[in-house]
Amino acid sequence: MNFGSIFLSEALGTGILLLLGAGVVANVLLTRSKGFDGGWLLISFGWGLGVMAGVYAAYKTGGHLNPAVTIGILCSGAHEYAPGIDITFANTVAYIGGQLVGAFLGAVAAFLAYKRHFDLETDEGKKLAVFSTGPAVRGYGWNYLTEVIATFVLVLVILSLGHTPTGLGPVAAALLVVGIGASLGGPTGYAINPARDLGPRIAHALLPMGNSGRKDSDWSYAWVPVLGPLTGGVLAGLAAHVFF
Amino acid sequence: MNFGSIFLSEALGTGILLLLGAGVVANVLLTRSKGFDGGWLLISFGWGLGVMAGVYAAYKTGGHLNPAVTIGILCSGAHEYAPGIDITFANTVAYIGGQLVGAFLGAVAAFLAYKRHFDLETDEGKKLAVFSTGPAVRGYGWNYLTEVIATFVLVLVILSLGHTPTGLGPVAAALLVVGIGASLGGPTGYAINPARDLGPRIAHALLPMGNSGRKDSDWSYAWVPVLGPLTGGVLAGLAAHVFF
Amino acid sequence: MNFGSIFLSEALGTGILLLLGAGVVANVLLTRSKGFDGGWLLISFGWGLGVMAGVYAAYKTGGHLNPAVTIGILCSGAHEYAPGIDITFANTVAYIGGQLVGAFLGAVAAFLAYKRHFDLETDEGKKLAVFSTGPAVRGYGWNYLTEVIATFVLVLVILSLGHTPTGLGPVAAALLVVGIGASLGGPTGYAINPARDLGPRIAHALLPMGNSGRKDSDWSYAWVPVLGPLTGGVLAGLAAHVFF
Amino acid sequence: MNFGSIFLSEALGTGILLLLGAGVVANVLLTRSKGFDGGWLLISFGWGLGVMAGVYAAYKTGGHLNPAVTIGILCSGAHEYAPGIDITFANTVAYIGGQLVGAFLGAVAAFLAYKRHFDLETDEGKKLAVFSTGPAVRGYGWNYLTEVIATFVLVLVILSLGHTPTGLGPVAAALLVVGIGASLGGPTGYAINPARDLGPRIAHALLPMGNSGRKDSDWSYAWVPVLGPLTGGVLAGLAAHVFF
Repeated sequence: MNFGSIFLSEALGTGILLLLGAGVVANVLLTRSKGFDGGWLLISFGWGLGVMAGVYAAYKTGGHLNPAVTIGILCSGAHEYAPGIDITFANTVAYIGGQLVGAFLGAVAAFLAYKRHFDLETDEGKKLAVFSTGPAVRGYGWNYLTEVIATFVLVLVILSLGHTPTGLGPVAAALLVVGIGASLGGPTGYAINPARDLGPRIAHALLPMGNSGRKDSDWSYAWVPVLGPLTGGVLAGLAAHVFF
Repeated sequence: MNFGSIFLSEALGTGILLLLGAGVVANVLLTRSKGFDGGWLLISFGWGLGVMAGVYAAYKTGGHLNPAVTIGILCSGAHEYAPGIDITFANTVAYIGGQLVGAFLGAVAAFLAYKRHFDLETDEGKKLAVFSTGPAVRGYGWNYLTEVIATFVLVLVILSLGHTPTGLGPVAAALLVVGIGASLGGPTGYAINPARDLGPRIAHALLPMGNSGRKDSDWSYAWVPVLGPLTGGVLAGLAAHVFF
Repeated sequence: MNFGSIFLSEALGTGILLLLGAGVVANVLLTRSKGFDGGWLLISFGWGLGVMAGVYAAYKTGGHLNPAVTIGILCSGAHEYAPGIDITFANTVAYIGGQLVGAFLGAVAAFLAYKRHFDLETDEGKKLAVFSTGPAVRGYGWNYLTEVIATFVLVLVILSLGHTPTGLGPVAAALLVVGIGASLGGPTGYAINPARDLGPRIAHALLPMGNSGRKDSDWSYAWVPVLGPLTGGVLAGLAAHVFF
Repeated sequence: MNFGSIFLSEALGTGILLLLGAGVVANVLLTRSKGFDGGWLLISFGWGLGVMAGVYAAYKTGGHLNPAVTIGILCSGAHEYAPGIDITFANTVAYIGGQLVGAFLGAVAAFLAYKRHFDLETDEGKKLAVFSTGPAVRGYGWNYLTEVIATFVLVLVILSLGHTPTGLGPVAAALLVVGIGASLGGPTGYAINPARDLGPRIAHALLPMGNSGRKDSDWSYAWVPVLGPLTGGVLAGLAAHVFF
């Protein structure tokens, strides 16, 4: 599979992930939305099923949708990223590039789907929360650790799926993300995916957000949901190399 | 498979979809119902599992249950609507006709199941909401765009399911609709299916709704949940033709 | 398989169904329970996953757990109740007898699991609601119709499962019951199973319910959740005979 | 498979179970967490999907994650704990030892993930509740009985899974635990696993819990969620020996 096909496949899948993921946050947070105040389980299901939808759509590339997964596979000593896709530098760039661009575009699509609700929303913090994660209690070290732990679980369990015969791939991955969101999303909103956070944060910075002249994309926090998941993915890949 | 069998199968499946789908809205909205105020996740699961039930019941025709899916398959360059069912004009009419009639009858069945709650309900808007979708913030262009985006995801992911070996068909479709409802249902109530909205709207117009002389089936909005999903289905079919 | 084995298998499965089903209602309704006021989706999942657990435990007899399912299979023209179990009068009695006794015992087990919460509960209506269903708006004809419709969907879709290759049997049945509960449980609390309602109602009549001398097991309503589901099962069996 | 590999596999799986399980309780209970007050269904899904994640990660040893399951298999007359792992005294010790140590470490990881929320929490009872179960209405005999009943269902249904062909193992186990939590978690918070309660209770006793000098790990209750599940597991194993 060539660079462009990998890039497109991962961009498509990650775009759908972000469209549904950012969408469910918009549904729960933004004024007058039908799912307003729908609760954390609704958010957990929205993101988890966004993973399922994205993994199905990106079936050609195994649906990583997440640089931490790609890097985790790299560190696990696997021979392929997906059937027929070798682990090379160029392919790694194609995966991660597609994920970042897809996450950006998916967030834009969610913005368009909820455009009128953004127009009517007066809480700028909620607008940012649709795009990117933020900590419940700010403390970069602890926030980073939370992201490392949550992503470690995500990537390690994904790497174990290939060793079991159920063939539930996308549904199991979906339920795993529902579970991680339910359980470990409390402190930081579970980025567990650098592309999921960085792509939409760039979209937030570029898109017109209306109402007020000031716009704060909280760039001081932006390294946490990038480096935390990458660290967790590396550790999970190494652990899988040892355990599995 | 002949015209009548296709028609009946799709009518049966779409009828069950609407019975459960309109039913869950009635359960959450109508006065004195046991699931009153049960939340958006309950609604998302009701519709999603309605899809699962309907797809199983319409297994002979692949359980499209949705003109946007049928049209999407048509545009994707596939050779069959389901194993043994060619893509012909007559079969297309059988699918879509069955879907419309089934959606109408399923909504009538939901009305009968909740008859006493309709009798006791004084809010006419809630009665219509059991049957058909409506926008949270009216704005036809943006509402149309939301339906296009949500249906694009629906049809594209459904078209990808055939390329994966899990064999989870109806359950994956159900979870996909739970996810789309959770994530993209906020602005318009996610018709994502012309038959799902138009059939029941006709039922709402014809059925006795009690209490008041005035009845408003909101026909000025009715084109949005028909043309939006059809547009999304066509675009998804074309995208699948290119990507998959 | 002999009479006693069929009876025991169905009693075990239906007992687990009622233990989890009555349990979730106790959890949501009874004072000081940890799931108090947990919402309709929690109830829908409790019953649905009770079906899954019971079907797995009764795998030897195909896990009917419900006379409406047994009668529905009978009316569908099938040749067996489960692999190796012929459709005979004696086997039918073994199935339904086991279901009734199991439902009674499962409700007793749920009562024991929540014994201290029953002791502390002062609302007699909630105690009955743990055991048996009751209408949100009393009206025997309409209540009966709601049970007919909901059971028709249940049995028809169960009969369609055998025609699809996914092999998800117990999970699909569980999700189907979650969906029916979410969507059609509003008016009558979805008995959709004569044994599920009658067995526990007998248990309610016999068990010590504390607090007050008066105990009302609402026998005037008891025929609705028996005859409604049986009617729905017969109609679904006949429909399956025609459609599938 | 040698002692150390069994120990590590079960420790890894049970660690992930406790990380997600303790995590979801922290998310719902601790101050300023994003899932605060998220409801009992969220808790049920968090624990259930923690089981799924842990079973996948411990695929080499069949993912018991629970001494009651290990003892139940022992009592069921099975020949192996998992493919290639004989039922011996040493292997039994490896399983249970790994489960206890994993549960301890998983609870510590959850504590670290929610560290800032523990720092800010002033209710000592909530801190303990993240680690270990406690009764809604204290009464050791009835609490013990509830744990026996709930664990009996858990282990019996798990033992039945091997007799069905669906191959849904980890997902079915997850849904089973969601269902038991939803239905039978009301009185005691459903330990249904001695390691799940005892390991974290030791962690609670050892970890710094801040704020106040007094710390009460409620050791007087600690035998209930150990002996109750073991009793239920033994009874389920014997029942499976007879029934299956």
